[in-house]
Amino acid sequence: MKTEDSTSIVGVDIGGTTIKAGIVSTGGSILYQNKFPTLADRGPAAVVKQINEAVLDAVRHSGHETVGAIGVGCPGVVDDDGVVKSPPNFADWDEVPLKLELGLLFPGIPIGVENDANAAAIAESKFGAGIEYPNFLFVIWGTGVGGGIILNHKIFRGPTGGAGEFGHISIDYNGPQCNCGNMGCVEAYVGQRYLSQRAAQKLQKHPESRIIQLVGGDLSKIEPVYISQAALDGDTVAREILVEAGQLLGVGLASVMNIMDLRVSIIGGGISAAGDFVMQSVQDSVVRHVLKPLKSEIRVLPAKLGNNAGLLGAAGLVM
Amino acid sequence: MKTEDSTSIVGVDIGGTTIKAGIVSTGGSILYQNKFPTLADRGPAAVVKQINEAVLDAVRHSGHETVGAIGVGCPGVVDDDGVVKSPPNFADWDEVPLKLELGLLFPGIPIGVENDANAAAIAESKFGAGIEYPNFLFVIWGTGVGGGIILNHKIFRGPTGGAGEFGHISIDYNGPQCNCGNMGCVEAYVGQRYLSQRAAQKLQKHPESRIIQLVGGDLSKIEPVYISQAALDGDTVAREILVEAGQLLGVGLASVMNIMDLRVSIIGGGISAAGDFVMQSVQDSVVRHVLKPLKSEIRVLPAKLGNNAGLLGAAGLVM
Repeated sequence: MKTEDSTSIVGVDIGGTTIKAGIVSTGGSILYQNKFPTLADRGPAAVVKQINEAVLDAVRHSGHETVGAIGVGCPGVVDDDGVVKSPPNFADWDEVPLKLELGLLFPGIPIGVENDANAAAIAESKFGAGIEYPNFLFVIWGTGVGGGIILNHKIFRGPTGGAGEFGHISIDYNGPQCNCGNMGCVEAYVGQRYLSQRAAQKLQKHPESRIIQLVGGDLSKIEPVYISQAALDGDTVAREILVEAGQLLGVGLASVMNIMDLRVSIIGGGISAAGDFVMQSVQDSVVRHVLKPLKSEIRVLPAKLGNNAGLLGAAGLVM
Repeated sequence: MKTEDSTSIVGVDIGGTTIKAGIVSTGGSILYQNKFPTLADRGPAAVVKQINEAVLDAVRHSGHETVGAIGVGCPGVVDDDGVVKSPPNFADWDEVPLKLELGLLFPGIPIGVENDANAAAIAESKFGAGIEYPNFLFVIWGTGVGGGIILNHKIFRGPTGGAGEFGHISIDYNGPQCNCGNMGCVEAYVGQRYLSQRAAQKLQKHPESRIIQLVGGDLSKIEPVYISQAALDGDTVAREILVEAGQLLGVGLASVMNIMDLRVSIIGGGISAAGDFVMQSVQDSVVRHVLKPLKSEIRVLPAKLGNNAGLLGAAGLVM
């Protein structure tokens, strides 16, 4: 396949189970895309080998003999030198100088490495829902809650690359304990564990709920994806749960908007896809909780790029 | 008085009741300082006239015929053009183009205008407790709670100049209502109103407290300054109240540090001067609530410049 660009930009999205690499046009089209197992349980060397395979495969399909640049998005904190620190569920991975290692595999080719949530934020900024907004907070709302901050069309990484941890804004210092050890984090309220518990609780009084059908009657199997699905199917209990969760998410967003002088939030991840009523719930909550001068300008918008955000943002890093 | 600098930098600190102007050396020494009434109740024109008087007086005492630059710190949101918006308790002051107006009074002289909390943050960064910290959150903890964010030794103003509103991070979405309309804001927990109520509550069981002596037995007269004074005098109840408040402040700080990847907070304002035990309480709370990678690097430090921070930071703006 021949690209229209004079060089090929490769974007790589490293997830816990699969690595996706693709050829991305400067306009943000994915011209080719593959999928390799991450092998995260086999340690960093195995993962780097898989990245190499994925990139080589993408290059082979690009119609070019080499690549113009490689951008990588991956879990964990990524410092300014492209060292990736402690990605969750990656075995034996404390600190790995991923940028350096890829530089040895692809000498002379510009390489960028960024945290996956930041990469997705970059993608929405360059190609998605954030094109017209120079400043916004991007949120991934799925099993956990992650984020990335765009200031003046660029990612705000903070002093050491750790900025954007929206999931760990506490909205109740007496609230439920979060996996991070803190109390009442946004993630502890609207992430998988809490949503599933809340659903199980509510469903005891609602045996007719679509959620119960979707999990085959086994309440221990409830996951946000089923709640979203049930909500899409019009289930009242599912909608109530997500509206409540949206309100709580909005409390955290308002705090961030107040401290950083932001007005716009773009929300991606599985739950955000459950329907406009979720966005509306978040929007209403932010407007209610934010400082007066910000109220009229608040915009809470769904992300546009879905599962491709990571790969597109990784490519966007090196454009 | 002759300055050692070849030109004079004038710093102006506009408060609700007094305007202070001073000649500031590039090293951060105040070489001369005056004080004029703000006349905030007489409208913007009267205030601008007072600023003019204060600056002219400072120049007269500088030993120079003119000034090198004028920096101004004032309440309210200040946009990138030096327009000052809605400073609290300033009559008829919606939006005033202060930078422009001062430019007409002092033609050809560089003029900077900044929010007062941001100016104080700049002062601590350039001349005070923040010199060695490129990134920190500055907090003013007094009647209200304000803040300013220093990133890479510069003030972070946010997209429209409103960043740093630390007092309006909510730490409990079911908490007491804040003046801003939101629930559970840091300011609603550790600002004047709440502290005074909390004290009045506790004192019913502690008639021996030094606080009661300080307010002449009238619990309606309790203000944070008396609680601080009693704490300095060793009063147990006062110390308990401030330790509790410090813990709550720390919850808010932890959220900001998580989202912005910060490790350092410098705390000024009246209450911070009550003693090291307050700083220790805040520090312990932040360490307890912040994400793991940040814990070992957390530093909560008292501000160094006290009441001079505003004036010094205003001068620092234009250095």
